[in-house]
Amino acid sequence: MKQSRTFIPTLREIPTEADITSHQLLMRAGFVRRHMNGVYSYLPLAQKVLRKIENIIREEMEAIDAVEIFLPALQQTELLDQSGCGTSDCPDLFTLTDRQNRTIALGLDHAGVMTTLLRDEVKTYKKLPLTLYQIRTLFKDEKRPRYGLIRLKEYMMTNAYSFHANQESLDDKRNKVINAYATIFSKLGLNVKTVIADAKSIDTKQSLKFMALSEAGEVTIAYSDSSTYAAIMEMAEVKVEDSHQPETLKEMKEVETPNQHTVEEVSAFLGIDQSSVVKTLIFKANDDLVAILLRGDHKINVLKLKKALGTSEVSLATETEIAEVVSCEIGYIGPVKLPLTMKVYADHAVKSVFNGVSGANKSGYHLVNVNVERDFAVDDYMDLRFIQEGDPSPDGYGTIQFATGIDLGFVSDIGSNLSRSMNAVFIDEQGNSNPFIIGCYGLGISRLLAAVAEQYNDTNGLKWPKQLAPYDIHLVTVNVEDETQKQTSEEIYQLLTSYRYSILHDDRLERAGVKFADSDLIGLPMRLTIGKKAADGIIEVKIRSTGETLEWQREEITEKLQAYFG
Amino acid sequence: MKQSRTFIPTLREIPTEADITSHQLLMRAGFVRRHMNGVYSYLPLAQKVLRKIENIIREEMEAIDAVEIFLPALQQTELLDQSGCGTSDCPDLFTLTDRQNRTIALGLDHAGVMTTLLRDEVKTYKKLPLTLYQIRTLFKDEKRPRYGLIRLKEYMMTNAYSFHANQESLDDKRNKVINAYATIFSKLGLNVKTVIADAKSIDTKQSLKFMALSEAGEVTIAYSDSSTYAAIMEMAEVKVEDSHQPETLKEMKEVETPNQHTVEEVSAFLGIDQSSVVKTLIFKANDDLVAILLRGDHKINVLKLKKALGTSEVSLATETEIAEVVSCEIGYIGPVKLPLTMKVYADHAVKSVFNGVSGANKSGYHLVNVNVERDFAVDDYMDLRFIQEGDPSPDGYGTIQFATGIDLGFVSDIGSNLSRSMNAVFIDEQGNSNPFIIGCYGLGISRLLAAVAEQYNDTNGLKWPKQLAPYDIHLVTVNVEDETQKQTSEEIYQLLTSYRYSILHDDRLERAGVKFADSDLIGLPMRLTIGKKAADGIIEVKIRSTGETLEWQREEITEKLQAYFG
Repeated sequence: MKQSRTFIPTLREIPTEADITSHQLLMRAGFVRRHMNGVYSYLPLAQKVLRKIENIIREEMEAIDAVEIFLPALQQTELLDQSGCGTSDCPDLFTLTDRQNRTIALGLDHAGVMTTLLRDEVKTYKKLPLTLYQIRTLFKDEKRPRYGLIRLKEYMMTNAYSFHANQESLDDKRNKVINAYATIFSKLGLNVKTVIADAKSIDTKQSLKFMALSEAGEVTIAYSDSSTYAAIMEMAEVKVEDSHQPETLKEMKEVETPNQHTVEEVSAFLGIDQSSVVKTLIFKANDDLVAILLRGDHKINVLKLKKALGTSEVSLATETEIAEVVSCEIGYIGPVKLPLTMKVYADHAVKSVFNGVSGANKSGYHLVNVNVERDFAVDDYMDLRFIQEGDPSPDGYGTIQFATGIDLGFVSDIGSNLSRSMNAVFIDEQGNSNPFIIGCYGLGISRLLAAVAEQYNDTNGLKWPKQLAPYDIHLVTVNVEDETQKQTSEEIYQLLTSYRYSILHDDRLERAGVKFADSDLIGLPMRLTIGKKAADGIIEVKIRSTGETLEWQREEITEKLQAYFG
Repeated sequence: MKQSRTFIPTLREIPTEADITSHQLLMRAGFVRRHMNGVYSYLPLAQKVLRKIENIIREEMEAIDAVEIFLPALQQTELLDQSGCGTSDCPDLFTLTDRQNRTIALGLDHAGVMTTLLRDEVKTYKKLPLTLYQIRTLFKDEKRPRYGLIRLKEYMMTNAYSFHANQESLDDKRNKVINAYATIFSKLGLNVKTVIADAKSIDTKQSLKFMALSEAGEVTIAYSDSSTYAAIMEMAEVKVEDSHQPETLKEMKEVETPNQHTVEEVSAFLGIDQSSVVKTLIFKANDDLVAILLRGDHKINVLKLKKALGTSEVSLATETEIAEVVSCEIGYIGPVKLPLTMKVYADHAVKSVFNGVSGANKSGYHLVNVNVERDFAVDDYMDLRFIQEGDPSPDGYGTIQFATGIDLGFVSDIGSNLSRSMNAVFIDEQGNSNPFIIGCYGLGISRLLAAVAEQYNDTNGLKWPKQLAPYDIHLVTVNVEDETQKQTSEEIYQLLTSYRYSILHDDRLERAGVKFADSDLIGLPMRLTIGKKAADGIIEVKIRSTGETLEWQREEITEKLQAYFG
């Protein structure tokens, strides 16, 4: 392709709208342009990379017997109501009204459409399992579109659904999809961590996410420094550590702590470590107030609390509500002598606080040498806190570290709730009617593009891995008005095209500096420069990934290229 | 692909919703399913055909230096207002409101997005011409979705835009696109007529449409039986025929024609041919009444009338309005002695009516032996009627025939109006600022699929042309519980796969009759049946397109296949 005949609008300056590296470079190298907030046009170079990504996805999905289909973006809102995401309770959902005044949704996923299809067409276990996937654009009323191609209103996805007669079949397919996705990441050259996305699922691996490690990532990942364990930080279970009771449990005493409300203040005031404090928080769960105890240096993870209490109706109690059960200021609440009607739940770590400090339920006072069980009762111990760097890894191997990642996709069990609610059933081998067991899988293709750009660049521009580069070779004619250079370029273009290399030929009437800067910015794996030395049969070579520069004799070019590209 | 592992839900009955052949067969053969009115899911077989169509399109577009991009469906409404299709005046446009309460359109095309891109990024003639195309789904608030994949709310399109510094360059590119589209149709095996879509453009070929000939087509095409001339019937110009005045112009006389209002009634009553009648219609054009004269056997083409009068404000005058200028009943209006203030326009054919009949502007009376110029004046002769079968072809070769077609796509000049209104300009070779000259091209991919199904079928099902078939070969194992048949099938599957044939293997535990009926319905080019004769090394072959059945020796299979598939 001649560069003058395609559309690669490079920029010298970083666009002000571009907030992360991939976004800046994809803009500057002329891959994308923003049409509106969260909506992008993919220009010729990006489209080439996207198609390569899609083909890699197709190859790997087909290798695990997934079959490609194409489902509509326009969806019945009735279906969304059935599948649990109604139009009213889903702020991410775009809806529109047609001329017949009917509301239509731009579906966020295809679980409902797919399950309807199977319900209507698959009646027997003999046709199961069945795995269907698609590649298409989806739409989302994203609250805060940003980070270039990461958070979009219109984006490219591949999603897949598998339908099974039993859980073993789903488990088997899920593992195959996880392996297929791993191969896709590997073929894309992406450094990805597979993380646990749902705390309940550590054993069953029901819900996993795939995170491209990147400083631009929005998601904090907790991972072990010595094993493959990784989880979304919020989801990481905390390993229960053994508690070692000291020889003496000292006598509990009330101490005056005027104007010391927070753990930081109290521990500094008393000259103790924050980990010696038992922090007491009053939550309202459904309509009841409950006391939640944490070690002073730990933070409450409300998601875990909700799961532990089995309700999503959980929030910090208001001052008025608290005043009904304790009569002190909030900073002085403690677990000792709380009203008996109130349940007390403690994070596991509270068990290992001995001779600790807590509020005295009396404004201006704390208790020291407080000991659980001796001085107060706990209804249940639970995992209620956020994991921290330095904690032991929940799998028992190594220590937790944090990293940030770009959320690329997921595998998740839908199970049989949806099919049951939609009455999507099949007849099993025994002649019984059962709901389909469904697995759900997805990868964000726009995000894959951004993640590769995020992981492959330097200050001069992008550095595409060979298998994804929009073209293999950037053929740069330094001076297109020089007859030798022009003719040499043309001959080399023809020669290499006949060898099936894909070539972007910079045939523009521009200064050499502009051409080289653009070439680095675009980041094709190899640059072949046809300059003054062309007259002596010498071609200048630059390997983008390493910055290495070489000089090749013209006659050895195909051999050298084969050695490089394989 | 094993048929048990993919999703091909065939139907024995014709679905009641399916109104045309392609729709019925694509439903019955398990290619598509309706999700809602005008919205379809494309199942695995359809997806395979669609991808083949897309690849043919890509190949031909790239051969004419068109570059692929991907533009958003979500579009700024401001842009649509600029490009002349505002949100309020375009009933086909879907709009939605995001959480920031901003109106977003699901763009019907990409002329605006594309012109914005070029305006912002291309400043000089040196980067022109530039042709960009894409393949994507589009959305339309279709008034009456129907005919399966023909009139959809969500559909697949390829559209292209070319940007030029001058008209010659656009003319050149338009011809290239026309040729590329012709190659695409030829590769798809489609019988397509290229028709004139705009009467003004017969010479310049500014606007053409591509029609797949089909009884299911909604569009009437007027074409010559002896040349390549074809036009949308409404758009076909009528060739002006020479008029031969007879020797005697007889004396005009008033005759009584009680209760004879229509041309049919009057001609029957007077025993004359309808072509001897001069029909007079009163139209209101802007605020003026005009008299329009037609030969009695011709029909007014209001589109032509609007173009001829240069206004879209044209409608038949009401009785009240007519009563202001003539005092007779409407059936008795004629051109003789109309008020002088009213302009009189006649279709060219009126010139050749001699000694004709017209209304007498007096209820219950007509005039006979009426002759133009002698008895009444005409302000102008124009082409105002619909072309008819049997008319001479406007290009001077042959006679007009009618056919119906499916509107597959178009080529059309946008010219420079849009770029001028959007201030999308470039600097030309002389340093002057000029608006881009734009060409616009499109093909409906969902319609291409439907059109192929419409042209390739018989009563038993679809008959895919080789180059589009979802698989090359349908390998049918008659009895999967027979070990010889099962093993032979498996070996042949492996063998032919290694020869790169794509195979759908019917490995289902179904009766032979069901398998053969499904096979005919799906319509792959060749069926290889592994039945009882497999034990004797014989494979039964059926060619779907011809119905021919053969028996091949197992060892000659690859040779025979190569002879068939080439």
